[in-house]
Amino acid sequence: MSETKAIHPGRPGWWLQELEPVLISSLDFGLIGLAVMGQNLILNIADNGIYCTNPSAIICLLTWLLGFTVAAFNRTVSKVDHFLENEAKGKSIVGAHSIQDFCDKLKSPRRIMLLVKAGPAVDDFIASLLPFLSPGDIIIDGGNSHFPDSNRRTKYLSEKQIRFVGAGVSGGEEGARYGPSIMPGGNEEAWPYIKDIFQSISAKSDGEPCCDWVGDEGAGHFVKMVHNGIEYGDMQLICEAYDIMKRGLGMTNSEIGDVFTKWNTGVLDSFLIEITRDIMKYNDPVDGTPLVEKILDSAGQKGTGKWTAINALDLGMPVTLIGESVFARCLSSIKGERGRAAQLLEGPEIPAFTGDKEAAIADLEQALYASKIISYAQGFMLIREVLLLPRYPHERAPILISKLQAAKEYNWKLNNPAIALMWRGGCIIRSVFLADITKAYRAKPDLENLLFDDFFKAAIHQAQPGWRRAITQGIQFGIPTPCFSTALSFYDGYRTRDLPANLLQAQRDYFGAHTFRVKPECQSETLPEGKDIHINWTGRGGNVSASTYLA
Amino acid sequence: MSETKAIHPGRPGWWLQELEPVLISSLDFGLIGLAVMGQNLILNIADNGIYCTNPSAIICLLTWLLGFTVAAFNRTVSKVDHFLENEAKGKSIVGAHSIQDFCDKLKSPRRIMLLVKAGPAVDDFIASLLPFLSPGDIIIDGGNSHFPDSNRRTKYLSEKQIRFVGAGVSGGEEGARYGPSIMPGGNEEAWPYIKDIFQSISAKSDGEPCCDWVGDEGAGHFVKMVHNGIEYGDMQLICEAYDIMKRGLGMTNSEIGDVFTKWNTGVLDSFLIEITRDIMKYNDPVDGTPLVEKILDSAGQKGTGKWTAINALDLGMPVTLIGESVFARCLSSIKGERGRAAQLLEGPEIPAFTGDKEAAIADLEQALYASKIISYAQGFMLIREVLLLPRYPHERAPILISKLQAAKEYNWKLNNPAIALMWRGGCIIRSVFLADITKAYRAKPDLENLLFDDFFKAAIHQAQPGWRRAITQGIQFGIPTPCFSTALSFYDGYRTRDLPANLLQAQRDYFGAHTFRVKPECQSETLPEGKDIHINWTGRGGNVSASTYLA
Repeated sequence: MSETKAIHPGRPGWWLQELEPVLISSLDFGLIGLAVMGQNLILNIADNGIYCTNPSAIICLLTWLLGFTVAAFNRTVSKVDHFLENEAKGKSIVGAHSIQDFCDKLKSPRRIMLLVKAGPAVDDFIASLLPFLSPGDIIIDGGNSHFPDSNRRTKYLSEKQIRFVGAGVSGGEEGARYGPSIMPGGNEEAWPYIKDIFQSISAKSDGEPCCDWVGDEGAGHFVKMVHNGIEYGDMQLICEAYDIMKRGLGMTNSEIGDVFTKWNTGVLDSFLIEITRDIMKYNDPVDGTPLVEKILDSAGQKGTGKWTAINALDLGMPVTLIGESVFARCLSSIKGERGRAAQLLEGPEIPAFTGDKEAAIADLEQALYASKIISYAQGFMLIREVLLLPRYPHERAPILISKLQAAKEYNWKLNNPAIALMWRGGCIIRSVFLADITKAYRAKPDLENLLFDDFFKAAIHQAQPGWRRAITQGIQFGIPTPCFSTALSFYDGYRTRDLPANLLQAQRDYFGAHTFRVKPECQSETLPEGKDIHINWTGRGGNVSASTYLA
Repeated sequence: MSETKAIHPGRPGWWLQELEPVLISSLDFGLIGLAVMGQNLILNIADNGIYCTNPSAIICLLTWLLGFTVAAFNRTVSKVDHFLENEAKGKSIVGAHSIQDFCDKLKSPRRIMLLVKAGPAVDDFIASLLPFLSPGDIIIDGGNSHFPDSNRRTKYLSEKQIRFVGAGVSGGEEGARYGPSIMPGGNEEAWPYIKDIFQSISAKSDGEPCCDWVGDEGAGHFVKMVHNGIEYGDMQLICEAYDIMKRGLGMTNSEIGDVFTKWNTGVLDSFLIEITRDIMKYNDPVDGTPLVEKILDSAGQKGTGKWTAINALDLGMPVTLIGESVFARCLSSIKGERGRAAQLLEGPEIPAFTGDKEAAIADLEQALYASKIISYAQGFMLIREVLLLPRYPHERAPILISKLQAAKEYNWKLNNPAIALMWRGGCIIRSVFLADITKAYRAKPDLENLLFDDFFKAAIHQAQPGWRRAITQGIQFGIPTPCFSTALSFYDGYRTRDLPANLLQAQRDYFGAHTFRVKPECQSETLPEGKDIHINWTGRGGNVSASTYLA
């Protein structure tokens, strides 16, 4: 991302801290949880300020000049004092030493954001807050909660007249500090009260805030989950290119860094390519060698990529690239076993590369680009599946009945065209690429698949020869490219009218009497279209089909 | 599978049906659910009989001669009568017209097997049975239940002094009738009472029954789930080979059938290859053309493959081949969208194949074989992960903490070496291949990975040149090979000591302060081994790491 970020100089807020003893029902916003995201987000909020409900123009002006006023709380209270004395010093931020104190300081309706670890901690804080809240107050969960939890919390708090918002926040440390992507969903009544704060602290892309209302209940966290899944995929794709350059083409980290620098000026221009460039060029100050080569190749994960893959499996959507990227992390994590395998299992020798290196690098760029198009196409297929009713239900196989039920079950209204825009800036996957996606969905909001858009169709057509060559190169080297490969398999499968699943259906009917249907063009009197047909393939066995018992 | 199955001629059982009005507490076994699996299993049981607890030698002999006596029940009672008048006529099977009547007919302890649709139907029948059962009675769920349900049911029924067994049954129609693979787990107290019946009706492989006690609670259904996932993979692998032969090499179904005939005499010798041969040769009697080509290429699924993939994701085990095979079914099911994509998206032209067809077919055989080795290695990795405590916990990355908890949570004792044996015969994935796996685990029960066995290591080394060529061929054709490809990526990743996940960890630390560890060989004073390290990559940002808030 070549875009330079406008960094707020920060507004003076010492006056607020002076006033602290008399602050009652007066602060704009409250935030609980002072780990890295919480601290940065609170500083970001204090540095902004365009929101004003006070009728007095002078106070409105002051609010704008001085920034939003924020109360901070943390379970370990000493962290509040430490934060106030250091990072928050001189800002319009005050600390609270109890939940009650915290709630008392906030104006009505209270806007309280939790940035605590997803899971029971969120429920615990909600329970602690409830006694001190009034009807109409707003609780925002800004953590990486699983969307079914946000569904549940929206319903639960709605019964208590509290408005719940599950907001996905992406952008890491820097994003939180200077402008994240925010994906809020939940109780829509809360949106007018938080819109201005959220849109003023969020990243901007071409002047538009990377924050908009996503939809009902857990829709915000659902979209954030898919975002994270896509992030897993993007990272793994970059790793595959790096691995081929390093082990296959024998390049140094500095040379690889130069390639990423160049890629960052083209179609791959993005935050993740940019930081990869930085990482390639970062040397350990102790010995001047690339630090990245010293890092243990055992990847961690916090679950959101996994959730996306599981959700895709549950809804029957082939989101293969995210699935493979999660599995790639799993494989990396069994480092000890891999070490033993490396001593036993052979592959092709990787000879010193003597071919056309520039051409091989150009192929890699195309492989990365094409795979990325597939990954986003798959991600939007999942979003479409969950958030919009399928438009061609009559074409769907029986499995899809569960999908229709899912869409019905969630019952979310969705602000679909806004999603690509929200991901354009601020978040980890921000990129020029997402501007192209935004363009595609703006031109045709009901686009069936990203690959059907003229721009992306042309892009993937142009990329595919290099993409195929790069994977073939990896196969010859014996260097794994799980995500490049699964993307290509998806592409080749997706554009295939007649897949070999006819054989699979025949097998299922042969051994399990699971029945099959016929292709419309092959129907006959004995093989009517749209009917479940069972054939006695062996001449043995009975005529009972597996209509009730499904093995 | 060239093995010829011994088909029982069936024992006469008319005498039992004559006695029906006076039968009280006398029948050996009860079965509920008369769909295809239930009917065939009940006929199988009635045709067998070596179990005898009666002290009188003459009755014992009679029981052996006449077969087990069985009561049949079905929710739609008319089905019972129909079954008795047709398939069960003259067998030692009697019908029941109510749950109470059914329970009254069974001797103590009652052995009742449910073969009903997995899900609420199982709980419903359990609830209907309970009022008529006595302490010590045994309920066996032979359906495709999800193993967590069997965990729950074992505990629930144990409190009521009823012994619950969750038994995976595989083999389809034919298997159920003439000898399935049976994988029972649950309350081990039940095993002595059902062992003889189960082992006598199950398939035999080299004289050993393909049925043994798997482990506690849902362990039987868990192993059956993995079996089904592997079955998904095996089927998809065969489809990929068929697709390349058909569309890439331009072969006719009869020619492809000949290839499968040949493959069925070598390392791929298995039930699924055998039925694929039959399917290729099966012509529609109406016009004499191959029936399989008329079947709609939209694959159904009942969930067990999906469960396996989800379980693998949950436990962080890279069971990629099953994952891809499930996604391949999903992709096949969006047939309408694929049709539209086929008109818009281009691939390479597939020219008439002019290369060495025999060599290309030999490569395909190697690709199928090597991918299958990977799939079973992955399946056993999952089983090992769930059922055995990892032997190298100190080597595991943080994600694996959840795995340890899983192993602890299930807390199953496992009869591990028996699994491969159980799959050798009777079930859908039965094969010569599984005899080799059995051999490997018998030779070394604590084998860390199937790929470490000398036989399979040599096999995959020999197969890999053809495997790589076959995938490359698919890429050139533009024919998808998701499972061949993911298997190779796994192999190349698994045998790689240093994967590019070091970059991934650097990225995560860069944007999210997620910290990293260093490779042992790269540790220094500033980069100590075994410590979570955060670097300020940009020179901006704070020093707060994401220890508590994990984005």
